[in-house]
Amino acid sequence: MELVTIRHEGGTRAGRIEGDAIVLLDAPTVKEVLTADGGLAAAATADGGATVAVVDADLAPVVPKPDKLVCVGVNYRDHIAEMGREVPGHPTYFAKYARALVGPNDDIVLPPAEVSTSIDWECELALVIGRSVRNVSGAAALAAIAGYCVLNDVSVRDWQRRTTQFLAGKTFEGLTPFGPSLVTADQVGDGSGLALSTTVNGVVKQESNTSHLVFNAVDIVSDLSRVMTLDPGDVIATGTPGGVGAARNPPEYLKPGDELVTTIEGLGRLVNRCR
Amino acid sequence: MELVTIRHEGGTRAGRIEGDAIVLLDAPTVKEVLTADGGLAAAATADGGATVAVVDADLAPVVPKPDKLVCVGVNYRDHIAEMGREVPGHPTYFAKYARALVGPNDDIVLPPAEVSTSIDWECELALVIGRSVRNVSGAAALAAIAGYCVLNDVSVRDWQRRTTQFLAGKTFEGLTPFGPSLVTADQVGDGSGLALSTTVNGVVKQESNTSHLVFNAVDIVSDLSRVMTLDPGDVIATGTPGGVGAARNPPEYLKPGDELVTTIEGLGRLVNRCR
Repeated sequence: MELVTIRHEGGTRAGRIEGDAIVLLDAPTVKEVLTADGGLAAAATADGGATVAVVDADLAPVVPKPDKLVCVGVNYRDHIAEMGREVPGHPTYFAKYARALVGPNDDIVLPPAEVSTSIDWECELALVIGRSVRNVSGAAALAAIAGYCVLNDVSVRDWQRRTTQFLAGKTFEGLTPFGPSLVTADQVGDGSGLALSTTVNGVVKQESNTSHLVFNAVDIVSDLSRVMTLDPGDVIATGTPGGVGAARNPPEYLKPGDELVTTIEGLGRLVNRCR
Repeated sequence: MELVTIRHEGGTRAGRIEGDAIVLLDAPTVKEVLTADGGLAAAATADGGATVAVVDADLAPVVPKPDKLVCVGVNYRDHIAEMGREVPGHPTYFAKYARALVGPNDDIVLPPAEVSTSIDWECELALVIGRSVRNVSGAAALAAIAGYCVLNDVSVRDWQRRTTQFLAGKTFEGLTPFGPSLVTADQVGDGSGLALSTTVNGVVKQESNTSHLVFNAVDIVSDLSRVMTLDPGDVIATGTPGGVGAARNPPEYLKPGDELVTTIEGLGRLVNRCR
């Protein structure tokens, strides 16, 4: 099953993709689908009484305002090497706030040049939590994952590096595309074995496979659930492979007019124009 | 004016302190007071038709679920020295999620010993944003601050230090007391010149003054508003002075039965029993 959140009649609505149509559901976003009685099972057959053609849909971030948006850094060996870091013994977490998110086909409005010109791409497998869990591992951690999406952890490198903590460079408003849909875990399993890539203006910049994650989705959910309860609609981005702009010689960054395409096998793609 | 969020009839209600009584307002939390038409000005005279005695009130975190809970690290010179760090050229930001928060008089339930035994105190001046702002500085940054509270950024040191990023050790569920009230900025100005302290079982562990902040409230709001829009109810904790347990020889950490008291001049205090 594929669920989306679309902009509709001045607000948002959750929907289920059925072929060329989106069946609207009685929930403003996918988060409320997950928290409602019956959750995904109910959403599989629900019908809000109207449809929108997929080609006409204006897609919002799948979860526009997650309670938690957690990112994992330094989690692919080739990216660790290109950034000159060590393979960590534990997952490295940092946050974004919801103001960072944009829809899967929205424009990315770059910050003014006087704020930064080092805006970089980071294609990532994102998972969405489907039920509240604490201190889980193994099968229970896997069962907590509602499904998977594509996220590009677009990063402002000079702000990321001006102190020891990444947050400022990671949560710039409106730079992080997220979507296009939530593909439920019954279609994707633990999220391993999926090809993922970034292209800029049609040129491949990142190309890897989620099997190369140091800590996979289950590892991350297990570890993070020691820290706090994970809740329905929480989003975790699992890290990016090699090929980021900052590691190139000379470095390459996004500029106005660039088309950024982020693709994960089985999950679809984000197509975002920079301006 | 002092505003609180109290637990009331199975939910929460915002209130305004008037002497020994809390006048209930038509808003579930202080966040909705700030986002409502009229904001603080309206709250100064509003009356929801009922009162609760201050001594009977069960205080919740002033803003139980902020859209953003941002913390500033390494922001007092004596704490920077005791942690062996350099004075940074920019504010160092990291996040907590709302699940970290507890009320000003709630128990702090320490993690099991097998998860961590290095739970440390960090008294901090917190500010609450009162209006949406982006790219502000000076007087406009000051005007964006609705008021101030006390927050103890209780930290799990081994989890904070196991990777380069602080987040995991900073956002453990239920360790961060926050309150007791929002004291509006007309009483506190820019938050400087306030004595702040931590005691554990009556013994002073931290004792400093907010005038020793490297980056003050206006600096932080100005800088952070370059990154993203700050919204009503957003909370920013400004950092902790010297005297944390991890910097003591030998290190000292919180243990079951300890009473943690966090006080800021003019803002009141948090009294939390560890168990």
